[in-house]
Amino acid sequence: MSVPTIDLTDPRVYRHWTTDTVRFSDTDAAGHVNNVAYAAYCETGRLAYAYSILLPDREPEESFILARISIDYRRECRWPGAVRIGTAPVKLGSTSITLGSGVFKDDICVCTAEAVVVFRQAGKPAPIPERIRARLEADR
Amino acid sequence: MSVPTIDLTDPRVYRHWTTDTVRFSDTDAAGHVNNVAYAAYCETGRLAYAYSILLPDREPEESFILARISIDYRRECRWPGAVRIGTAPVKLGSTSITLGSGVFKDDICVCTAEAVVVFRQAGKPAPIPERIRARLEADR
Amino acid sequence: MSVPTIDLTDPRVYRHWTTDTVRFSDTDAAGHVNNVAYAAYCETGRLAYAYSILLPDREPEESFILARISIDYRRECRWPGAVRIGTAPVKLGSTSITLGSGVFKDDICVCTAEAVVVFRQAGKPAPIPERIRARLEADR
Amino acid sequence: MSVPTIDLTDPRVYRHWTTDTVRFSDTDAAGHVNNVAYAAYCETGRLAYAYSILLPDREPEESFILARISIDYRRECRWPGAVRIGTAPVKLGSTSITLGSGVFKDDICVCTAEAVVVFRQAGKPAPIPERIRARLEADR
Repeated sequence: MSVPTIDLTDPRVYRHWTTDTVRFSDTDAAGHVNNVAYAAYCETGRLAYAYSILLPDREPEESFILARISIDYRRECRWPGAVRIGTAPVKLGSTSITLGSGVFKDDICVCTAEAVVVFRQAGKPAPIPERIRARLEADR
Repeated sequence: MSVPTIDLTDPRVYRHWTTDTVRFSDTDAAGHVNNVAYAAYCETGRLAYAYSILLPDREPEESFILARISIDYRRECRWPGAVRIGTAPVKLGSTSITLGSGVFKDDICVCTAEAVVVFRQAGKPAPIPERIRARLEADR
Repeated sequence: MSVPTIDLTDPRVYRHWTTDTVRFSDTDAAGHVNNVAYAAYCETGRLAYAYSILLPDREPEESFILARISIDYRRECRWPGAVRIGTAPVKLGSTSITLGSGVFKDDICVCTAEAVVVFRQAGKPAPIPERIRARLEADR
Repeated sequence: MSVPTIDLTDPRVYRHWTTDTVRFSDTDAAGHVNNVAYAAYCETGRLAYAYSILLPDREPEESFILARISIDYRRECRWPGAVRIGTAPVKLGSTSITLGSGVFKDDICVCTAEAVVVFRQAGKPAPIPERIRARLEADR
């Protein structure tokens, strides 16, 4: 799979969406949502994607673990309300997948993220199985 | 206002509902949602109630602060999914209101809570204004 | 064990202490530490107590689960710094123990809590073993 | 300031250290500390650095905001205990500074991070003042 550079701030690049609630405890003394909560929102989107597209048929020894995440903070986010999180594959390696995310509040992109998740078989990095690759291709 | 003892595990006692997303980061190493996250769910319900019923017309110097909360943990709660939180007034004092909450996952009551919130005027406890009392009475 | 009513705001009632770091992400848009973080501080103290006094010699099937907590918010708590958490038994039942906690920032009691933890054997409430009762008596 | 590529997993590259407590509520159902908590640990280190080196003499209109963070998850981290967080400048731009962090548990590097913080004057990006540049140079 080779994906041309995509603009993660553009909601049209996402086919998979989920929502998360902005909690008052997500805010900090600066008055808006703390950067740590953005990481939780991204995880909500990433795991929904992982469970529906990557491993809906997960074998006991199979898992994906998060190896790296980069988050670009684009706009402040305020309580109350909800965020919508779009998730899309942006790169497919031999043992890892890079997932892109966009978090939107009131249709404004408040952050984007790229997360590298590594496939594991019995606790060790392993080549991504063909069935998962096929699903990713079909999902594009 | 005098409210007969109400069963906070019964969803029929609540007229006000909101939802919160169960996050993977809400779980702990015991495998289910950590007790601290239940407190966040209760706050989501309590603040939604406060902003719609208690202080929709908040004056700058007015606020409610949380003085006390008690939470009864009734059932374990598992990721993923969402919780529905019902909130209802259970006691009205001169400067404080006790709000009851029920948190439900898949229609099962996972916890109930009672929170005492104290009305403040310019940073000091003050009698609850008549307009708020009237709204609470009308809301029963 | 019968413990006379104790003043949980008095640091002298605690023999067991631990610390927690006040994080910026613990604060909320009201400018101080959010009430949910107080619950996390209390848990830090409670678990340190549980692992050192209640179940240092835990058998695989034994556990304590939290059944109820009540927290009295006494003072606001501000970032940065650390809190010291004192934990002491306040009541011993047949299958449950009530643990009292005091959270102190800069020697000021910011909250107190009472938590009811229930002893479990193989997932069901069970009488607290004699060896745990003996340790609680010895610890008074 | 030009800093040669530094190995953020090497504790010797850090002159500034702070600690954070690993909370049980930081763990998740996978049994170890959730990735979101690593972001909180990095923030603890970054803000301690910001308040001691970057803006100990902060003017009311001055601030740094987080524009981007990338975190490399290197090892799992388990409760209980504490983490030590080292923070060091790795790049100095005209309006931004990249801060490197290493989080260590029991002397093992569990993650490293690079955070880009942007200097702001009255809410807008502005050149980093000479006094801050001088402190960064002196701190190397």
